[in-house]
Amino acid sequence: MLGFEITAQSTETRARAGSMTTLHGEIKTPVFMPVGTLGSVKALSVEEVKECGAQIILGNTYHLYLRPGCEVIDLFKGLHGFMKWDGPILTDSGGFQFFSLAKLAKTTEEGVSFQSHIDGSRHVFTPEKSVEVQQSLDSDIIMCLDECIAYPASHEAAKKSLELTTRWAARCKTFWEEMTFRKNALFGIVQGSMYKDLRAQSARELADLDLPGYAIGGLSVGEPKDLMMEMANHTLPLLPQDKPKYIMGVGTPEDLVELTAMGADMFDCVMPSRNARNGKLFIDSGAININNAVHRMDTGPLDPRCSCYTCRNYSRAYLRHLFKANELLAYRLNTIHNIHYYTTLMAEMRIAIAEDRFNDFRNDFYNKRTIGPMSPIGPI
Amino acid sequence: MLGFEITAQSTETRARAGSMTTLHGEIKTPVFMPVGTLGSVKALSVEEVKECGAQIILGNTYHLYLRPGCEVIDLFKGLHGFMKWDGPILTDSGGFQFFSLAKLAKTTEEGVSFQSHIDGSRHVFTPEKSVEVQQSLDSDIIMCLDECIAYPASHEAAKKSLELTTRWAARCKTFWEEMTFRKNALFGIVQGSMYKDLRAQSARELADLDLPGYAIGGLSVGEPKDLMMEMANHTLPLLPQDKPKYIMGVGTPEDLVELTAMGADMFDCVMPSRNARNGKLFIDSGAININNAVHRMDTGPLDPRCSCYTCRNYSRAYLRHLFKANELLAYRLNTIHNIHYYTTLMAEMRIAIAEDRFNDFRNDFYNKRTIGPMSPIGPI
Repeated sequence: MLGFEITAQSTETRARAGSMTTLHGEIKTPVFMPVGTLGSVKALSVEEVKECGAQIILGNTYHLYLRPGCEVIDLFKGLHGFMKWDGPILTDSGGFQFFSLAKLAKTTEEGVSFQSHIDGSRHVFTPEKSVEVQQSLDSDIIMCLDECIAYPASHEAAKKSLELTTRWAARCKTFWEEMTFRKNALFGIVQGSMYKDLRAQSARELADLDLPGYAIGGLSVGEPKDLMMEMANHTLPLLPQDKPKYIMGVGTPEDLVELTAMGADMFDCVMPSRNARNGKLFIDSGAININNAVHRMDTGPLDPRCSCYTCRNYSRAYLRHLFKANELLAYRLNTIHNIHYYTTLMAEMRIAIAEDRFNDFRNDFYNKRTIGPMSPIGPI
Repeated sequence: MLGFEITAQSTETRARAGSMTTLHGEIKTPVFMPVGTLGSVKALSVEEVKECGAQIILGNTYHLYLRPGCEVIDLFKGLHGFMKWDGPILTDSGGFQFFSLAKLAKTTEEGVSFQSHIDGSRHVFTPEKSVEVQQSLDSDIIMCLDECIAYPASHEAAKKSLELTTRWAARCKTFWEEMTFRKNALFGIVQGSMYKDLRAQSARELADLDLPGYAIGGLSVGEPKDLMMEMANHTLPLLPQDKPKYIMGVGTPEDLVELTAMGADMFDCVMPSRNARNGKLFIDSGAININNAVHRMDTGPLDPRCSCYTCRNYSRAYLRHLFKANELLAYRLNTIHNIHYYTTLMAEMRIAIAEDRFNDFRNDFYNKRTIGPMSPIGPI
């Protein structure tokens, strides 16, 4: 990463706006990063991803390493050329997928051995290997290999695990510095399960490594929402203030507003795209289910104030029809809207922070939410 | 239909080029019409359909009548407004779907009663009802309700059936003339199974009705390819020379070249879009299966001479990866290429006819086809 600058600080909350510079362009924060697990933000072309307002996308190291494999992506000098996305890319380390997806993952001091969820083939990822694969993907922001443990975990297990994650982060840093000219960024990942003392220990140990950025991992792994928020709120101020802070794998629009207020700068989540494919669409008043019969004769757009391609062109009646009929276009039009909703929410927050009226923004945001975050019933 | 004009006649073959005028624009013939069964050409936006070179698309009356239903499409004053396609639309009559898709279809002199393949609900389509539904869809070219019978059929059954189709066509014409100011076109559908005398009888009886255009139906229903071609070759010259001639539901690129040489003007087929979704992609040398391992490390486009969005931007390696990973973008990129291939083939034929070198074009076309029409193995 070539730089990170905080351009505005809310005086009412810990929210801040900033700008990250990468070789593939600038990223204004706080930012939401759409997930493009396998080299495509599901259902969208890269032009559509850009038109939706996305500044940076996320690729999954575990998935891309297994399929198509580094030897294919190397032919294109990285993921940018392979998928034709010319903006910044962040890749995760694989740590979360060993925990959530791989079979028979076995962790030692050296690294993780696991079986592919696709063909059962055996592989070993060390911290160095994870950095090497992410370098091969030509990622602008690469993540340290971390161990993600299940919730709930004992204090002893969580402590042992976070300390391993720290040692791995140190190995990642050494290897990364040998391989690169710091043209990209290496982020550490704070672990520590739901123990405040352990989160503090993890944050402190990683801060000592003086990495270009920090993420909070191990959230949204089954714990109650309140606990997730409490851990984020506890941990965010413990991270270096001059570095970008990234909450991994979270969350709802409400989560993004609250976490931004706590000082988080970066987010990724499959929620807008996955919900889109399930017909759950975000609007200012909450979320609607396009499958609902109430939309059958509705000639209006999803959201008359939304400027996305879907809302500019199509009716709820058409979207519902496509969705009911399992037409492939449904997944695309829905995803465009939801990603646009998320990026627009972030843009509004950036403006509110710059104008130092974050609390007004937040009040407005909640006042509009009359039907709740995930109501299955749409408004009439 | 506002007009049909033949602009060029091949002296070497019966191929001809022409121009149809509709309220939604001009259609240069011979033309391939992509199929948009349910109000969407599967996987494509209307902008992409247009960019692929499509001049007119096809909608399916049976499908749209059942879902979303005329009462929904009426709110948009027709299919154009509902799906946002501003070019010409042709709709079939439902006749083929009663034969191929509906349950317990029962034909009487009055019409067809059938059960929906979606929910089992019972419906009745008369010739008048079919015209009424197609008018409600605001179709530019509407098809007479026909009876499509299974192959093989006895001479007696085929004769009885085609005569019913003629009586239904007369009823369609009467109803259509009462309802419209001939702003759209009503096409008759020739039946007669695989009997030349019956095809001739059907063509003669329908020609007597002096309809704006004629289609040949009941082909590609399980008969050998040679027989299909023989029936088309026999029937096409029997249709009025000053009217557009449409071969329904056919076919491969080779079929389109041969049928154009026989004097056909219009085609529709799910082949380019359905094959695309199955990874079968058309190129000049034949067809390749993008799933094949030979494409894994191929950094070149599907076809370096193709100007479609897919070939301009993406490699075979990326297309294979998306397809292997079941990424939704795969279906879109593949469909764009295949539809573009079909429309480009038709455009090349129109030029060859205009320049009266159809046989040269045809020889070139076959000389390039080194890997066959549907080879499962791609070229190296």
